[in-house]
Amino acid sequence: MLIVQKYGGTSVGSFDRIRNVAGRIKSLREDGHQVAVVVSAMGGVTDKLVTMARELCDEPPEREMDVLLSTGEQQSIALVTMALRQLGVEAVSITGRQAGMKTSGSHTRARIEAIDPTLSRRYLGEGKVVIVAGFQGVNEEGLIQTLGRGGSDLSAIAFASSVRADLCQVLTDVDGVYTADPRVVRDARKLPEISYDELLELASVGTKVMQSRSVEFAKKYGVKFEVRSSLNNNPGTIVTEEHEAMEAVVIRGVSIERSQARVTITGIPDEPGMSALILGVLGEAEINIDMIISNTAHDGYARHSFTMHTNDLGRVQAALKPVLSDLGGEANLESEAGIAKLSVVGIGMRSHSGVAAQMFKALGEGGINIGMISTSEIKISVTVEEARIEDAARVVHSAFGLDTAPA
Amino acid sequence: MLIVQKYGGTSVGSFDRIRNVAGRIKSLREDGHQVAVVVSAMGGVTDKLVTMARELCDEPPEREMDVLLSTGEQQSIALVTMALRQLGVEAVSITGRQAGMKTSGSHTRARIEAIDPTLSRRYLGEGKVVIVAGFQGVNEEGLIQTLGRGGSDLSAIAFASSVRADLCQVLTDVDGVYTADPRVVRDARKLPEISYDELLELASVGTKVMQSRSVEFAKKYGVKFEVRSSLNNNPGTIVTEEHEAMEAVVIRGVSIERSQARVTITGIPDEPGMSALILGVLGEAEINIDMIISNTAHDGYARHSFTMHTNDLGRVQAALKPVLSDLGGEANLESEAGIAKLSVVGIGMRSHSGVAAQMFKALGEGGINIGMISTSEIKISVTVEEARIEDAARVVHSAFGLDTAPA
Repeated sequence: MLIVQKYGGTSVGSFDRIRNVAGRIKSLREDGHQVAVVVSAMGGVTDKLVTMARELCDEPPEREMDVLLSTGEQQSIALVTMALRQLGVEAVSITGRQAGMKTSGSHTRARIEAIDPTLSRRYLGEGKVVIVAGFQGVNEEGLIQTLGRGGSDLSAIAFASSVRADLCQVLTDVDGVYTADPRVVRDARKLPEISYDELLELASVGTKVMQSRSVEFAKKYGVKFEVRSSLNNNPGTIVTEEHEAMEAVVIRGVSIERSQARVTITGIPDEPGMSALILGVLGEAEINIDMIISNTAHDGYARHSFTMHTNDLGRVQAALKPVLSDLGGEANLESEAGIAKLSVVGIGMRSHSGVAAQMFKALGEGGINIGMISTSEIKISVTVEEARIEDAARVVHSAFGLDTAPA
Repeated sequence: MLIVQKYGGTSVGSFDRIRNVAGRIKSLREDGHQVAVVVSAMGGVTDKLVTMARELCDEPPEREMDVLLSTGEQQSIALVTMALRQLGVEAVSITGRQAGMKTSGSHTRARIEAIDPTLSRRYLGEGKVVIVAGFQGVNEEGLIQTLGRGGSDLSAIAFASSVRADLCQVLTDVDGVYTADPRVVRDARKLPEISYDELLELASVGTKVMQSRSVEFAKKYGVKFEVRSSLNNNPGTIVTEEHEAMEAVVIRGVSIERSQARVTITGIPDEPGMSALILGVLGEAEINIDMIISNTAHDGYARHSFTMHTNDLGRVQAALKPVLSDLGGEANLESEAGIAKLSVVGIGMRSHSGVAAQMFKALGEGGINIGMISTSEIKISVTVEEARIEDAARVVHSAFGLDTAPA
């Protein structure tokens, strides 16, 4: 088998951990596999480089940040390769450029456009382990670019696709994807598999296993991958295209997002263009808002509610204040912090009805009030008082039977 | 003018020093010059990376050492560029690869084969300061290679040649090239200019201004360069092709090499092949020997003497012990440590006679015994007792009038 592994900064964060990674790679070779490994910079190195840049320049140019930051991964590929050679394993390092990672777009947050796997394939064909620098590539002009947060995961998925790997393993400090955060829901179970779309919905509501764009890339190119721990040999969670058997499970998992706030504007004239006006202002201020609900009240005026992270509440209020007068004399802004969001996700929802009712019933029986509600094809989200969010997660997790192993 | 500057690791060894370098570059721009700057890794960084490599691997593969070490310069080009941008100077960094530095030969000690200045010229043409990573290039296979000790000087000379710079300045922690080491000879003067060959001879006998191969490269491609201090704005020493006026000065400088030892083998049969046998053994043991003198004594046997660094004396003795019996029953090995070498260098020697006599007379008048003597076209070297080497340097320096400004 051709296996592509990815190790993050924590997994290569010290000499001992690098040796541990080398030992794991050696085992795979001894089992007869071809192996390529994408690595991040050693934990802490990237932050240190950013600090150095800020020391010398108030606004370090992004082109130069890429030149600087890409050295972190270049160091770790050399060091991991050396650790492998110390164990007698034939290995070579390759930078993003040598791995044929062609990028485009802005520096410090580039996109992967294509990968030319010629050199990687040659080394793999020679029986060598290939250690690939994650997070980096070069654009058409030949300039080094980095991929931004979570970039090494993206490198790994893209690299696995380019060399047609049989298996792509993302090794991290979590064991896999769980039905809920085990720190909140003690009975949470590790999922043997999950579809791309489900992981995307879980990720977007706060399960920080992996950045969305890596999952989207994997979905687009059909790269099946496994999320597993770099500290043990337990099987992790396979992330793959959905298949029929997956629909038997209605809800795959529950996730929570804390520190949310809600802003409601009432007294909005019920005329076209009002929503665009309000949301446009927030867009210009580059504020991410999350749930959006709008309806018309009995008084003939419309009302808009939306949620955001509590940290953004002040900016939202400031951005909207000047808009209120444009909306006419009745417009008013109310806000509420101290709420949290609970979501259930599952592709089984598409073929099962009554999921929302079941969720609301469980919350009601638990004495938990529901604030806003929003739904998508495979997700239902509600807001609840933040103090009750853990209770809410537990009752819903249990109501959907997520704490018992599947049949 | 198009000026290429080179700053070593000490000159970019801290944030303050990087800011100092940026300020100097800004001044050149303000004077209307085009500027490209070759920089080394920040002082101490390369050593730290070597230590990391050794921690993980007893014999780190050289290919990977190059991947690792080249990050040092890549970091410093980004940081210097950022410091320039902070001062409002348009600047871009380029790696060895982007600078078109094509190398060949072994990893960690590669040679520069050619330079493609296309990208550098484009940036310079756009009015940008170009900050170039020294010490590195890529070979035909596209692999990163480093140039070994003094590699950044070599990068600068080669880069200046490729972009046809009007001036190449090597900025360092010395003020220029002196007639003698000012710590030894208080009256030593900074030379306004020196020929490549003279600097090569001075360098090879211990004046550590610059590695010989950088000077040889400059000579081969006719790159005139200036050695000057990065800490002040004093004019330095121009290193250039020799010209007629230079010959008016008989001796350009005096240099000393301490901690030398002498080994003499006596009783060597006066037959062909004896020298080859002795020197062959030392060559195989990879011991550098310096002065070699051989002659035939009154007893009909030959004797060989040679000098080496005291640290190598034990290895020389060990290597030669087994050879003595091959040389026949009369062969004997004597050795003497505690000597030092004094050399005078000047292309004027070619057209002036009596230089050796003048040197020996000065030493004699100073009461200093001469041991071995060796001469080349532009250099005369003698060994003296190490305790007298500083006196020897002073009397010779004075005898050739090096302590008085030239007419």
